[in-house]
Amino acid sequence: MAETGHFATLWKNLAEKFKLEVDFLAGDWRRGAQPAEIEAHLLADRERRIKAVMVVHNETSTGVTSRIHEVRKAVDRAKHPALLLVDTISSLGSIEYEHDGWGVDVTVSCSQKGLMLPPGAWGVDVTVSCSQKGLMLPPGLGFNAVSEKALLAAKANQTSRSYWDWHEIIQQNKSGSWPYTPATNLLYGLKEAIKMLMEEGLDNVFARHLKLAAATRAAVRAWNLEILCQDPKEHSPILTAVVMPTGHDADHFRDVALKNYDMSLGAGLSKVKGKVFRIGHLGHFNELMLMGTLSGVEMALDVAKVPHKAGGVLAAMEVLKGKDVVPVSTHRVV
Amino acid sequence: MAETGHFATLWKNLAEKFKLEVDFLAGDWRRGAQPAEIEAHLLADRERRIKAVMVVHNETSTGVTSRIHEVRKAVDRAKHPALLLVDTISSLGSIEYEHDGWGVDVTVSCSQKGLMLPPGAWGVDVTVSCSQKGLMLPPGLGFNAVSEKALLAAKANQTSRSYWDWHEIIQQNKSGSWPYTPATNLLYGLKEAIKMLMEEGLDNVFARHLKLAAATRAAVRAWNLEILCQDPKEHSPILTAVVMPTGHDADHFRDVALKNYDMSLGAGLSKVKGKVFRIGHLGHFNELMLMGTLSGVEMALDVAKVPHKAGGVLAAMEVLKGKDVVPVSTHRVV
Amino acid sequence: MAETGHFATLWKNLAEKFKLEVDFLAGDWRRGAQPAEIEAHLLADRERRIKAVMVVHNETSTGVTSRIHEVRKAVDRAKHPALLLVDTISSLGSIEYEHDGWGVDVTVSCSQKGLMLPPGAWGVDVTVSCSQKGLMLPPGLGFNAVSEKALLAAKANQTSRSYWDWHEIIQQNKSGSWPYTPATNLLYGLKEAIKMLMEEGLDNVFARHLKLAAATRAAVRAWNLEILCQDPKEHSPILTAVVMPTGHDADHFRDVALKNYDMSLGAGLSKVKGKVFRIGHLGHFNELMLMGTLSGVEMALDVAKVPHKAGGVLAAMEVLKGKDVVPVSTHRVV
Amino acid sequence: MAETGHFATLWKNLAEKFKLEVDFLAGDWRRGAQPAEIEAHLLADRERRIKAVMVVHNETSTGVTSRIHEVRKAVDRAKHPALLLVDTISSLGSIEYEHDGWGVDVTVSCSQKGLMLPPGAWGVDVTVSCSQKGLMLPPGLGFNAVSEKALLAAKANQTSRSYWDWHEIIQQNKSGSWPYTPATNLLYGLKEAIKMLMEEGLDNVFARHLKLAAATRAAVRAWNLEILCQDPKEHSPILTAVVMPTGHDADHFRDVALKNYDMSLGAGLSKVKGKVFRIGHLGHFNELMLMGTLSGVEMALDVAKVPHKAGGVLAAMEVLKGKDVVPVSTHRVV
Repeated sequence: MAETGHFATLWKNLAEKFKLEVDFLAGDWRRGAQPAEIEAHLLADRERRIKAVMVVHNETSTGVTSRIHEVRKAVDRAKHPALLLVDTISSLGSIEYEHDGWGVDVTVSCSQKGLMLPPGAWGVDVTVSCSQKGLMLPPGLGFNAVSEKALLAAKANQTSRSYWDWHEIIQQNKSGSWPYTPATNLLYGLKEAIKMLMEEGLDNVFARHLKLAAATRAAVRAWNLEILCQDPKEHSPILTAVVMPTGHDADHFRDVALKNYDMSLGAGLSKVKGKVFRIGHLGHFNELMLMGTLSGVEMALDVAKVPHKAGGVLAAMEVLKGKDVVPVSTHRVV
Repeated sequence: MAETGHFATLWKNLAEKFKLEVDFLAGDWRRGAQPAEIEAHLLADRERRIKAVMVVHNETSTGVTSRIHEVRKAVDRAKHPALLLVDTISSLGSIEYEHDGWGVDVTVSCSQKGLMLPPGAWGVDVTVSCSQKGLMLPPGLGFNAVSEKALLAAKANQTSRSYWDWHEIIQQNKSGSWPYTPATNLLYGLKEAIKMLMEEGLDNVFARHLKLAAATRAAVRAWNLEILCQDPKEHSPILTAVVMPTGHDADHFRDVALKNYDMSLGAGLSKVKGKVFRIGHLGHFNELMLMGTLSGVEMALDVAKVPHKAGGVLAAMEVLKGKDVVPVSTHRVV
Repeated sequence: MAETGHFATLWKNLAEKFKLEVDFLAGDWRRGAQPAEIEAHLLADRERRIKAVMVVHNETSTGVTSRIHEVRKAVDRAKHPALLLVDTISSLGSIEYEHDGWGVDVTVSCSQKGLMLPPGAWGVDVTVSCSQKGLMLPPGLGFNAVSEKALLAAKANQTSRSYWDWHEIIQQNKSGSWPYTPATNLLYGLKEAIKMLMEEGLDNVFARHLKLAAATRAAVRAWNLEILCQDPKEHSPILTAVVMPTGHDADHFRDVALKNYDMSLGAGLSKVKGKVFRIGHLGHFNELMLMGTLSGVEMALDVAKVPHKAGGVLAAMEVLKGKDVVPVSTHRVV
Repeated sequence: MAETGHFATLWKNLAEKFKLEVDFLAGDWRRGAQPAEIEAHLLADRERRIKAVMVVHNETSTGVTSRIHEVRKAVDRAKHPALLLVDTISSLGSIEYEHDGWGVDVTVSCSQKGLMLPPGAWGVDVTVSCSQKGLMLPPGLGFNAVSEKALLAAKANQTSRSYWDWHEIIQQNKSGSWPYTPATNLLYGLKEAIKMLMEEGLDNVFARHLKLAAATRAAVRAWNLEILCQDPKEHSPILTAVVMPTGHDADHFRDVALKNYDMSLGAGLSKVKGKVFRIGHLGHFNELMLMGTLSGVEMALDVAKVPHKAGGVLAAMEVLKGKDVVPVSTHRVV
């Protein structure tokens, strides 16, 4: 499991609560999962003690997007039978992702990371996602995509579980039912949200997020501030974490923005608390909403007397004026 | 644990999935938990192997309401340290109930029974409830009331759990927060629902349900049909299950009601599938909605050629005409 | 103009405010417009002073539906050039009606009768309707159907008008626009309401209203109360006005129904104030809603000590049990 | 009546439809009503043929706000008995205005200007307003404030009217009723909108609009474009009309903005069609929504190749950074 940030750490904690031994590949919260490092660990695992490789696709706490496709290739090169589990909680519907095409075993996407990964899940391949981000709904729904290989592992798993057991859900889904009363209202909303995404076209949705992210980074650079994510191939299309200059508290700055411009910026979490703030640009979001957001940041930087250069807003407009910004290639697997 | 019906059985199954040994006091699905029987079992338990007494307050599958207050007295008489766990999923906000006043340890009330009773909970005292019944909301919220004794037991519990762990929730609640993203929209709805209940007055809400239930039973008796619940002290104020005459399928009858009058009656579940149908009368519901419902049942009985006497609707009106129906005393603890 | 009830009288008053001379054919509020009487008046009008025959299709104050199709035939037989103006405010979308097929010149249907019939309209043929009845929307929209003959008359009309002038509206409608800011939200609702009506099928919608009306009348007769409408060919499919026994005040009875069963019955208006109450059965309304309504009336009659026989509810159920009630023929022009 | 723009002209047309003789004081659509000019006309009117002075408070077609308070003083200085009628359709709830305090006879505020000024109103003093602008509601409500003097004039008025007659409305309002079925849903919305305005505080609401307007004008000047309104004392707090450079079509520019940034700018109407575009900044609107809007304009100017200087967005931010922008004094009567 790769320590990409706060949410990867929470996932690790969850695993440890279930007494699983986690090989947590240390990270500085500024880079994504490193395929080469994962490959090396798998190659070293002669006894096949590693049951799963677990990666957060888009680390919401840092604005770093891991290259799942390359992680998959690393696992394949190592010829290791570990399952590949991916958390797509903040990326589903906003960042290009393929459960089957990329060979993921389990994709988890839900309101809260832990929701879909109970004891019984640790031996499997899963993708998880959620309703309140890229799918533009109120919180309350979670999504799992599960490979055949992952299902077999879950069946073999002897630990106790009830609510989190896929098999009963899959069984009842066959007749259009669910083991418990589901959040029916959100299912109606989901139908409409998917319709909206299809009308825009998923490729256009992904390209829109890439463009908004590029404009945001242009603004941050023009302000002469530092982007938390260090590898250009890993910039998140859906949020950008910005490092505060030394001696300035990010939470004080966030407070100034809220009080002066009624805008709530994301806080730095845990290790980066007070050190970064986060600009979200995902879901039902467009160019002018972003410009309002970036104007608010630029004015708040001034009001809060945070050292910076003016012109971030202008730099962002330069990016948004172009009709055909080429998307950063790493998020578009060719 | 008392076998009061389908939902008690599901609760037992859930416990067994966690490898707990359940002493399931057999029932015929027509009566509530028997305080004397519980007392006898506790008295016989010299080794104190019983950790909890678990009862479903209102068994939604049968229309039987167990007398929690008397169960509590039985536990007290036996001087047994077992926790008292109560499922109030369908009763919260519709039937008189007191977590503290009646000495319950854990009250569970949620969208789906299992939701709030994970492994770690088995050693504790809990009340559970839900949002989509008496609280008149869409499904998606669950409620737990937990005694100090139950919290201590949960703390001592060594089994693995994460999402279901109360302690992290209680910790974060202190600052108005929650470990995960909660279903915020439903919290706004809950605020309004509670306001509505307070405006009507809880005593009036409970009395309204008792009156509607009495009218429903009057109709069933006038049709010369049998009520599933056999003990008058245990009739549910929120739903009434009706036994079909031999040779007639309840699900066929329900289908006739749906097709002819656009009314969906509750199905018999599991052991009573096809043998009973259920008339719900809870939540945001009043006299004339009930009369529409009972008229639909009476007409559908006729259309489906189910042997019955006419006049159920008239009998119900006789009850509803009275301004001051005395509520059945068992649900009003004096 | 036929005095069919309160709304016909308001329409007459409106005309008189604009100094028009109205030949108001007196009525007892228990019958619809009389085709033979209209024919006689037109035949007597040698000087062609009569410019329009005006009839309220469904008189909401009395529960009497005039036979527009026969009125048209009467005008034709008289070979009189008068325009035929019809108010379909409460009938549009609930009672069979054809603007073109029946040879109506102007159909007016709106939130309030006067809305669409300003000075300039008196010389024309119009159908008017509204949004908050058969179309199941909040109040705020009005509808006009206008024949070529009516448009020519309006053009020739020399009186002053602005807001009520059709020509500017028609002109702007050609490009999908409107002279003023329209109630756009209601237009979205209208789109959905029409979709619902089409899904059910207009014939089914009309038949549903006829059946509900027949059941209501069966109840009234069983109570041994009198229906205000005297001609069986003119019973309204969408509401039924009931005459109170002498010595009993309809408004006191309505108050009893409201306080005891939270049901608001329609008041008697003007000439029949205190003498009748009205039961509405239109729009988004079905069998069981009606049974709730009729049960409320029957119980309130008892509580208010109004002399009546029991059994209205049973009589209504007899009607609703039948699958294929033959609609009263007068509202279905063959 | 002062020709301040398109909506004043429509009001004049409406009056002429009712065969009223209008003394239309010509304007160039770049200035408000001129108090001195009005005073001169009234002084010259020895025969007291002038019955009313009519002014549009905020001319939505030009972004010019007339100084009603000074118009009132001009009428007083002339000692002329004419009523003062004011259209506050786009200003109510957004721009400081006092019906009683400023001595206005009739204030009209509604969805569409003509709605509240029918024939009978011409002899009176009225303020009119509407629901879909400063009151943040869907269209469908109109508001009239009427002085005693205006009511007397209306009573004396002999022309025909029905729907537009105030007296019946006032009569029925006394018992909380209305002559017709009102748009009840909007009344619930109105209650909430007024609550929102009161929570913010009307003074803060007015100051917010003044600040947003000042920022918008700073942007327009930085772009080196011309503001349509020529008198700084008359700049509208709620919208700004911008003159396109010669040889460039405003509607083509608006189309570019719509297609590229999904933003619909206001069109130039009638005399200024194609020559101006309008930026609205009223109602439920704040600083960052404005910055999104201005960024969209600046980018679209570039995409559409309209000659301009960059930097409008920066200039607007300079204004919005200041905490205490002094409101332009003319809209704050001291």
